[in-house]
Parts: sequence; structure tokens; C-alpha cells
Amino acid sequence: MTSAAHPKPIHTAACLIIGDEVLGGKTIDTNSPYLAKFCFSLGIELKRVEVIPDDEEDIIEAVRRMSSRYDFVVTSGGIGPTHDDITYSAIAKAFNLKLALHQPAFERMKRLSKPHPMQLNFDWETPSPGLSAKLRMVELPFDPKVPAESQAVFVAEDLWVPIAVVNGNVHILPGVPRLFERLLLSLKPSLIPRLTDPEGKGTFRLMFSTPLPESAVAPYLTELAAKVGPRGIKVGSYPRWGKKRNTVTLVGADKAYMESLASEVEENVQGKQVAKEDELDPPSDSEHVYSQ
Amino acid sequence: MTSAAHPKPIHTAACLIIGDEVLGGKTIDTNSPYLAKFCFSLGIELKRVEVIPDDEEDIIEAVRRMSSRYDFVVTSGGIGPTHDDITYSAIAKAFNLKLALHQPAFERMKRLSKPHPMQLNFDWETPSPGLSAKLRMVELPFDPKVPAESQAVFVAEDLWVPIAVVNGNVHILPGVPRLFERLLLSLKPSLIPRLTDPEGKGTFRLMFSTPLPESAVAPYLTELAAKVGPRGIKVGSYPRWGKKRNTVTLVGADKAYMESLASEVEENVQGKQVAKEDELDPPSDSEHVYSQ
Repeated sequence: MTSAAHPKPIHTAACLIIGDEVLGGKTIDTNSPYLAKFCFSLGIELKRVEVIPDDEEDIIEAVRRMSSRYDFVVTSGGIGPTHDDITYSAIAKAFNLKLALHQPAFERMKRLSKPHPMQLNFDWETPSPGLSAKLRMVELPFDPKVPAESQAVFVAEDLWVPIAVVNGNVHILPGVPRLFERLLLSLKPSLIPRLTDPEGKGTFRLMFSTPLPESAVAPYLTELAAKVGPRGIKVGSYPRWGKKRNTVTLVGADKAYMESLASEVEENVQGKQVAKEDELDPPSDSEHVYSQ
Repeated sequence: MTSAAHPKPIHTAACLIIGDEVLGGKTIDTNSPYLAKFCFSLGIELKRVEVIPDDEEDIIEAVRRMSSRYDFVVTSGGIGPTHDDITYSAIAKAFNLKLALHQPAFERMKRLSKPHPMQLNFDWETPSPGLSAKLRMVELPFDPKVPAESQAVFVAEDLWVPIAVVNGNVHILPGVPRLFERLLLSLKPSLIPRLTDPEGKGTFRLMFSTPLPESAVAPYLTELAAKVGPRGIKVGSYPRWGKKRNTVTLVGADKAYMESLASEVEENVQGKQVAKEDELDPPSDSEHVYSQ
């Protein structure tokens, strides 16, 4: 369990997307790609993304496993006021916690929610089914052994929705992309001191465009991967189907070392370093499928 | 293990995206959304999507778990000729199988691969590092107890790449989206007879646009969900942040029953059935954030 005074370092991350609407093809998940870029920019290794249904058993199994294996876990979705929003209660169950009304969140909700034009007579003091539904959004998993303020973080002055933090590393975020992104960005200052590189320089990717087929660069890339692997650098090779040039990448934290390899890589793949994958595509690069 | 003569019925599916480039934010995964729509259209319940690194241990753990839990498992990525393509060997290991050169796939590769302009002197008969790399793509997991022809399916006349089928339900597809989509579509005729509804009518989604906030429709939707759940119908509620109308959905296979509920839903959510979520948005529906 992390305390505010001695937060654990963050090396790895995982993302849990909770949503029938994604599995059913209704909604495209943009939150996990956003988190992927966010982690990359901070030098956190995103190790896994899972999309699961709004189902208690699935949530419990996935969140327990992720919390035990990864340093920074972010969930997305399932925290609205309707019956299909069961993330808070399922995550509470996963860690044998109870839900408790989070008074500061409720106060903020009352203060910051604008009255909906269809609900102008809504009364915060009188019990009603609508009030019960709203309360579901501020009844959070509560661990009596942990300081309350570290279990629900408010990161933006104008938003009432908290980031509930459970079991020290599970961060529960809403599925609405604009909220997800805003809350994640607001978490950044508190994550930076916990990074391997607290300057937060992040991970770097060098890209090379090569006219060679993958099978021709494979032998050199195998050697290269063996050489740079011990320095935490991964070598990738990505076919660009129907294009005349493929992409080779170096990914790692040690930018200076990676840059020192650039001319060697260029020579061996008969290519050029590029900032964008399609930078060297000939204007006439029509559809033409080569063998790999 | 499934035999061609007595294939198991398909109720559920899972998708395993294997790729450092997705977790690193370089590439947006479009294959799992494509599979989600594909499954929905056939009435197969996609239960889980996972994105994992090009890492043997991760592949083994995920593919074993998925193969044992879901009827139809599709993997994407990691089957090219370079060192980072380890899907075939890791999946073979997961099920205690060896890799074996798949002669028909090799013959097709020789026949259908066009010579790459940078490799015009390539020779299929003379050992070379380039040939070894190409061979990695046709050395497939092989189970001596299962008919060979059910372990590598060729679905398109003009493609040499097979769909390797391991442990009866794991289908290994390439990550390149155009190939992934084409191969998946080509599998459709062989899946239809194995569906719960072999006519392949699929799943249906009725959408309703409501001007009410989620907390106001929550009590009715809770009742509705309890009523229609036993008939396999799920009720969803999706806030549309910054818009004046939210979305309520019914999802299930029993279209006639769902349609019989439409007027009741419209009345209770003070809304209208729509074909597109934004159909009833007023033209002036500017950014205006209501409380939920």
C-alpha cells in the first residue's frame, strides 16, 4: 500500500477499459491510446490494455491481477449513475472494501453541478430516485486503514468528479474521453516524482524508413536487438502494406545512445532516419503489394 | 479439440492484440474494433480484448486463458519475418507443440509472393539469412494428433498467408489491418454454421435519444434491465458530454421483442428512437456541460 509520504516508484502501467459499448462495436475506445501516449511521454512502460464487459466478476478478476502486477493502473468507465455503472462497487469488492459516501465529493457535486434544464426542481435535500442515482457517483470504495484524502483525489478546481484510488495503485477514471484525458493530465505532476527518471524526459522513438523488405533486414535487426537489448532498447520492424518503404524503430530512454546508432542503422537497412513514417514515400507510391 | 466434422458452437469470442507498437502509442489498433463489429453482426458475444507486448510469457499466459474460456479466439500481430515476431513460437509453446514447416503454405508463398524490387536475385532454393527469415512465416505450430488441413486454413486464392488454428479455437491472424480484415471476412462462411443462430442474423441495437439527464432515467432503466435481462437483452445508458441529449440502448438478439418495447422506452425516457446518436441534436447544440 502506498502512502502519500513514501509513494512507490512507477515503472509499469496497465489500463482497464470497462464497457459493453466498446466490446459491442458501438464505441471506439480512444482512452487507452491516449494513456499509451501519456505513459510513453513519461517513460512509463504500458504493459497491458484490457477491454472487459460491465460485469462484476470480470472487473474483480482483472483489477486484482493488474493491481498486483503493475505499478500504475488506470480504469476507464462504469462510474455513472445508471444500473450498468458498477465499477466502484466491483472494485470495492475486489479488495474487500465497503462503499462509503465521500462527503467532500458530494459537497463538490452539489456546488459544481449545474441544474439540468429538465430537472430544475431537483432537490438535493429530499430523498428521490434521482438523488439516489446521483449518490451512486460519490459512494466510493473506502479503506479505513488508509488516509481518506489519498483515496479520492481532486485534480481540477472546476470538476466535482474525484479520481478514486484503491489498493494504492488503481486509479478509477470516467469513460467520457474529454474527462478521462483532462483528469489523467492533471495527475501528471503527482506522477513525475515517482518515475525512474524524475525529470520525466520519457521514452524516445527513432524511426527509419527502409526500401528493403522485412526479410532482408531481419538478420541485421536480430543482431542489433541482441546488442541494444541490455541497454533497455527495443528494435521494431513494421511492414507498411502496399507501400514501397517499411519502418524500423528503436525505442528506449537512452536517447544519446540511440542517436549514436543512427548512422549504423541507416547504413544497414539502406535507409534514412525520418520523423514521420511516410516522409520518404515517393509521390507516386501507389498500391503495390510486395512479398515480405 | 474441435474436429472439422463436429465443430463446437460459438457463443463467445476474445481478441488478443500482440504489439509493442500499440502499447507504445505508435499505432492505433483498428483490428479489435473491426472484430467487435464483426462479432456483433454475427451474434457472437465478444467478451474480452487484450493488448499485450511482443513477449513470450505474456503471449503464453493470455492465449492459454483465452483458449480455455472463450469459443472463438483471434490473435493479431507478431507473425512477420523479423526477430520481434514471436507469435507462432510462443503459441506453440503455450500448447506444448512444436513448430513445423507447413509445406502447402511454403508452396503458396513461393508461388504468390511477387519478387521485391530490392531482392530480385533472391533464390528460394539456396539457403540464406533472407530465406531463413521468410521461412519463419510458414513454420507453424503443429499438433500431430489433429488433421493437418484443420491447422492452417487458406481462405483466399490470392493470399499465401494461412490462418493457423491452434488448440481448436485460437486463430492466428496478421496485424496489418487490410490483411486482418480480409482474412476475418473470409472466415465468416465457416463460422455461420457454428452460431447459436445459424442464420447469422446477429445482434441488434436499438438506440433512443433522451433529453433527460442520466440520473433521471436511472430508476426506470434499472427496472427495465431487470425485466428484459432474462431474455438476453442488455440496457445501456451513455452520457453525451457537452450535448443536450443522452443515449439509451437495448442490445440483444430478439429484435421483435426489443421493437415491441420501443414505445414504452420512448415514453419513459421522454425520448425518441434514433438510427444515429446525434440525429436529434439541435443545430445549435453548443458545448454546455450539465450535471449528470
